[in-house]
Amino acid sequence: MIREVCMVCGKERENIYEIKCSKCGGPFDIQLDFKYTDEIRANFPYIRNFVSLGEGKTPIVKKGKIWFKLDFLNPTGSYKDRGSVTLISYLAERGIRQISEDSSGNAGASIAAYAAAAGIEAYIFVPDNTKGNKLKQIEAYGAHVIKVKGSREDVALAAEKSGYYYASHVLQPQFRDGIRTLAYEIAKDLNWKVEYVFIPVSAGTLLLGIYKGFKHLLDSGVINEMPKIVAVQTQQVMPLCAKFKNINYTPPAVVTSIADALVSTKPILLEHMVKVIHDCIVVNDNEIINAWKELAKMGLLVEFSSATVYAAYEKLKVDNAVLILTGSGLKTL
Amino acid sequence: MIREVCMVCGKERENIYEIKCSKCGGPFDIQLDFKYTDEIRANFPYIRNFVSLGEGKTPIVKKGKIWFKLDFLNPTGSYKDRGSVTLISYLAERGIRQISEDSSGNAGASIAAYAAAAGIEAYIFVPDNTKGNKLKQIEAYGAHVIKVKGSREDVALAAEKSGYYYASHVLQPQFRDGIRTLAYEIAKDLNWKVEYVFIPVSAGTLLLGIYKGFKHLLDSGVINEMPKIVAVQTQQVMPLCAKFKNINYTPPAVVTSIADALVSTKPILLEHMVKVIHDCIVVNDNEIINAWKELAKMGLLVEFSSATVYAAYEKLKVDNAVLILTGSGLKTL
Repeated sequence: MIREVCMVCGKERENIYEIKCSKCGGPFDIQLDFKYTDEIRANFPYIRNFVSLGEGKTPIVKKGKIWFKLDFLNPTGSYKDRGSVTLISYLAERGIRQISEDSSGNAGASIAAYAAAAGIEAYIFVPDNTKGNKLKQIEAYGAHVIKVKGSREDVALAAEKSGYYYASHVLQPQFRDGIRTLAYEIAKDLNWKVEYVFIPVSAGTLLLGIYKGFKHLLDSGVINEMPKIVAVQTQQVMPLCAKFKNINYTPPAVVTSIADALVSTKPILLEHMVKVIHDCIVVNDNEIINAWKELAKMGLLVEFSSATVYAAYEKLKVDNAVLILTGSGLKTL
Repeated sequence: MIREVCMVCGKERENIYEIKCSKCGGPFDIQLDFKYTDEIRANFPYIRNFVSLGEGKTPIVKKGKIWFKLDFLNPTGSYKDRGSVTLISYLAERGIRQISEDSSGNAGASIAAYAAAAGIEAYIFVPDNTKGNKLKQIEAYGAHVIKVKGSREDVALAAEKSGYYYASHVLQPQFRDGIRTLAYEIAKDLNWKVEYVFIPVSAGTLLLGIYKGFKHLLDSGVINEMPKIVAVQTQQVMPLCAKFKNINYTPPAVVTSIADALVSTKPILLEHMVKVIHDCIVVNDNEIINAWKELAKMGLLVEFSSATVYAAYEKLKVDNAVLILTGSGLKTL
């Protein structure tokens, strides 16, 4: 029996319409009461029919001493598809026909694609100044785009209060839970011995999802040690690094960093995020641009937000590192 | 012992500097004198070290009655990576350090990426009016782009006479030969029983490469029957359909079809192409745009040239069809 409990107060989720904990406002998490199995879909017992677009099983390649996990080769061009497939499949089975989501980026595109595949109407709320390829991608999948004036929080509130089912990729536990597959794949790719994993961190979905996957492998006796997760943030958006290293941090009024997928200045799950990382590395725009160029010259074309991990690796230079490349560079050419 | 022989007169290739047959001008082909093996790389005995970017093993998904092979999820966003990895790996091992290629599209981007990965300098020759994301992608990998005035043939001639090693994706047999993996994967995905395969056809690289792969499986006793290959072309660029169906065809002075990757009005390998297809379907721009929209609303975002196969399928409606989706829609948003 799968239980969903509040990550803050432990209260059980009553039904799918309780998006945040009604007692304390915290986000929910899915508790795993079973052992990992190599039959990947069996690790998600709350889904019967996967609305799949071919997500996951992305390549891992070694360049020099570094392993790169090419998660930008997921169907919509980002790792988010791992969370969309579990969330959308789950909602489709429960009869949800219309959803809202707030994201002008990879999550919005991914949710839009999987909703389309499931025959669910998607209403994607974005800041009113949103433009560019990611918006075009959301629209291409046939989603309705609603532009909202105001802050990023105003956009989220508009999606939450829209009257459509709020399929938030940050709050919905079925989204975060889907990221576990990334940990499973990396562990298997590296013969169950993973030492360092570098990931970009914004709202914490990737971080907490991948941690959960590794923890599940550990609890299942499949790996013997937890990998060391190195979180990477930008100079402008570094709430996690600030908290982890006890540095003063005041978010800028407007985030202008070239790493435009890393924008969560006040992540709701910060308290949990700080507990699961081994280190947190801050990189600046110059370092990101240089890292992006170096990756491209290896044949790896990613978005700037994804190049952050290589910039961070260049600072840390540890052995046995896996760098997760999260988003496609084709969206940002 | 791998032999390379002229596809027209049968003369053996003397060395890698003989790009076209010195006797008759024909293109070379690699003759296979071994049986297929599940250890995929062993099917390419002329390569020792693969300069890999994680190409191949792309997802196959079923939507309704149709199988879609998502080859646009290759590392650079198109099936061309299957040919680039074999050609570039082969050339790198033979000490080639600088190459030329003529393509303003997916092949140019793919060759540029693999050359970068191999530490080979790439000079990509393109028509002087080339612009857009595919050009930006070529440049991102660090390739030199050389714009050439004149016809498409003038561009090819400039690349051939550039003084750099001419790594033509159309002529080089190691490129075409790499496409075999697509046939292997589809056959394995479908439990070694493939009935119809729909593919877009321009220069014939994909067609002849995939045919060769299936033929290899047949000759190796792995499959019992050749799949029926349905070629798809556009109203403007339909030399293969015209020849196959004995229709009069005069190429337009300028190709303006929305399917801008399908431009070979006079493919050099036409005589061979016509022998290996089961049928040839012509689609027009309206049908392509509609097919593109329908695919996107299934969550499959491809380029217009790739949507042609779905437009053709809608006309033929055969059972047991695999449609190969060749190029990413993220490049053309």
